[in-house]
Amino acid sequence: MTTREELAAFLATEFPQTKVTVEALGNGTARVRHAIGFEELRPGGTVSGPVLMGVADVGLYVAICGAVGLTIDVATTNLNTSFLRMPPGDRDIIGECRLLKLGRTLIVGEASLFSAGDERPVAHVVGTYARLAPTRPVRSGS
Amino acid sequence: MTTREELAAFLATEFPQTKVTVEALGNGTARVRHAIGFEELRPGGTVSGPVLMGVADVGLYVAICGAVGLTIDVATTNLNTSFLRMPPGDRDIIGECRLLKLGRTLIVGEASLFSAGDERPVAHVVGTYARLAPTRPVRSGS
Amino acid sequence: MTTREELAAFLATEFPQTKVTVEALGNGTARVRHAIGFEELRPGGTVSGPVLMGVADVGLYVAICGAVGLTIDVATTNLNTSFLRMPPGDRDIIGECRLLKLGRTLIVGEASLFSAGDERPVAHVVGTYARLAPTRPVRSGS
Amino acid sequence: MTTREELAAFLATEFPQTKVTVEALGNGTARVRHAIGFEELRPGGTVSGPVLMGVADVGLYVAICGAVGLTIDVATTNLNTSFLRMPPGDRDIIGECRLLKLGRTLIVGEASLFSAGDERPVAHVVGTYARLAPTRPVRSGS
Repeated sequence: MTTREELAAFLATEFPQTKVTVEALGNGTARVRHAIGFEELRPGGTVSGPVLMGVADVGLYVAICGAVGLTIDVATTNLNTSFLRMPPGDRDIIGECRLLKLGRTLIVGEASLFSAGDERPVAHVVGTYARLAPTRPVRSGS
Repeated sequence: MTTREELAAFLATEFPQTKVTVEALGNGTARVRHAIGFEELRPGGTVSGPVLMGVADVGLYVAICGAVGLTIDVATTNLNTSFLRMPPGDRDIIGECRLLKLGRTLIVGEASLFSAGDERPVAHVVGTYARLAPTRPVRSGS
Repeated sequence: MTTREELAAFLATEFPQTKVTVEALGNGTARVRHAIGFEELRPGGTVSGPVLMGVADVGLYVAICGAVGLTIDVATTNLNTSFLRMPPGDRDIIGECRLLKLGRTLIVGEASLFSAGDERPVAHVVGTYARLAPTRPVRSGS
Repeated sequence: MTTREELAAFLATEFPQTKVTVEALGNGTARVRHAIGFEELRPGGTVSGPVLMGVADVGLYVAICGAVGLTIDVATTNLNTSFLRMPPGDRDIIGECRLLKLGRTLIVGEASLFSAGDERPVAHVVGTYARLAPTRPVRSGS
C-alpha cells in the first residue's frame, strides 16, 4: 500500500511543476489541496478554470496511485468539467476524488472541488485515464 | 413539498412514453427504476446506451422536481455519460440522482446507474439543465 | 474498403433494433439518417434526447467501420452531448460524423446532428470508443 | 465589428495572465496561439493538460467576442476535453475555435487544438458559456 509520504516524494520528483499537496490517500480515493495566490486568479478575483481542472486531474491521478501503486503509465484521455460556483480568490481549493471504475485499460473517476471551509462544490470533474504499457520501473519513495 | 405519488401522476401525464418509475424523492435527490426487456437490449444482450442515458435524464429531471416542484420549464442542455460496465439484460436499471447546483438559470446534477442487486455502477452521468421562462401552470397531481 | 451496401446488411444483422440508415460512408466519416415518428417524440413535440444520442452513437460506429472495416469489437466508453436547438418532430434527423483520432486502443469522433433541411445543428456529440480484443470473425456482407 | 487589434488590447487589460495571442477573428470564429516553454510542460516533455484547456477556453471566449463584441459578461459553465495525442514541447499550440450555438442565455462552441505545423489535432474541446447580466460597460480598445 502506497503511503501519503511516498506519494508526496513521488509527486515532487515526477511533477515538479505542481503545487498540489496530498491530504489523504485511500484505495481509489484522495483528498488534495492547492494553495491560491495571484498566479491562480483570473479577472474578477476568482480562481481560474485551468487551475481547477489541474487540481482535479492531479487528484484523480493520486487516487489512481492509491489504488494501483506509484505509476507514470497512465494518460488523461478525457476531462469533463462543470463549473458550479465562482471560487473566491482567498481560499485554498480542496479536491475530493474517487475512482468509479478501475479497468484493465481504462480508469474513470470523479472529483468534487471546494473552496476551503465551504461545503458547496465549486466544480465537478469526471476524468478518464488510459493505462499505458509500462515504460520504466518507479522506485517507491525515491 | 412534492410527493412521490404526485410526481408519478405528473410523469404519466407529461411523459407518457417513459417507462421510468420513481422509487424515492427528496430535496434535490431521486432514485428511479427502469424495467428491462427485449426492447432495451442491444447486441450482446446488454442494456443499450440510449436507455441508460434516458434513465439518467428522467431521474435528474425528477430530482429537479423534488427541489423546485412540478415543472416542465427545464431543458437538458448537456449530458455527459461515462459507460463503466456492461449491464446484464435481465436486471432492472436503478438510477441514483442528486443535484450539484440549483442556480437561477442553470441546474447541474449527477446520476449513478446500477444493475439491480449490484453495487458497482454501470454508468455515470452529469447533466446540465436550463431553466426556461414559465410557459403554463402545472396542475399538481392532475 | 467497406461499401455502404455491406454496412447496411451488417447493421440489419447485428443491430436489428436500430432505425438508422446509412447515407454516405467514407474513410472515417459517415452520414446517417433516422426517420422520426410518434415513438421518437417527447412532450412539446420535439425529438427526444435518447433518440438524438442514439443516432450519434450509431453514426460514429458506422464511421469506425468505414475506417477499420466491419467490426463488433468496439464499445462506447464516453458520450458527451450538447443539445443546441429543439428539433421539430416532423423532420428526419441527419448525423454528420467524423473521427478525430483512430488509435490502437481508443477512437474518438464527433457528430453534428441536424433536422433535415436546416443547416443549424440541433445537437453536437463527442464519442469515445474502446477497441476490444477480437471476439469472432465478421463475415462481410453476410 | 470588433477588430483583432481591439481584441488584443482588451485581452491585455482584462486577462493580464494569459499568454494567448489572437491570429484571426471572425463572426463566431477565432484562431489563437500559445507559445510553449518550460512552464507549460509536464513530465515526458509534453504540453500539460491545463495549458491546452486554457487555450481552448480563451479561444472560445475570443470567438464569442468576435460574434457579440467585447464583453466580460460570459462565464464558462462546462468544458469537455478529449486528449487525442501528446503535443511535443517544442511547438506552439494553435486553437481553431468556432461557435455552434449563440443563444440568449447559453453559447456553445468547439475548439480543435494543434501543434504548430501538424494537421492532426492534439485535443478537442467543447465549451458552454452562460451569458450574464451586464455588469459594466467595456471601453472598446481601452
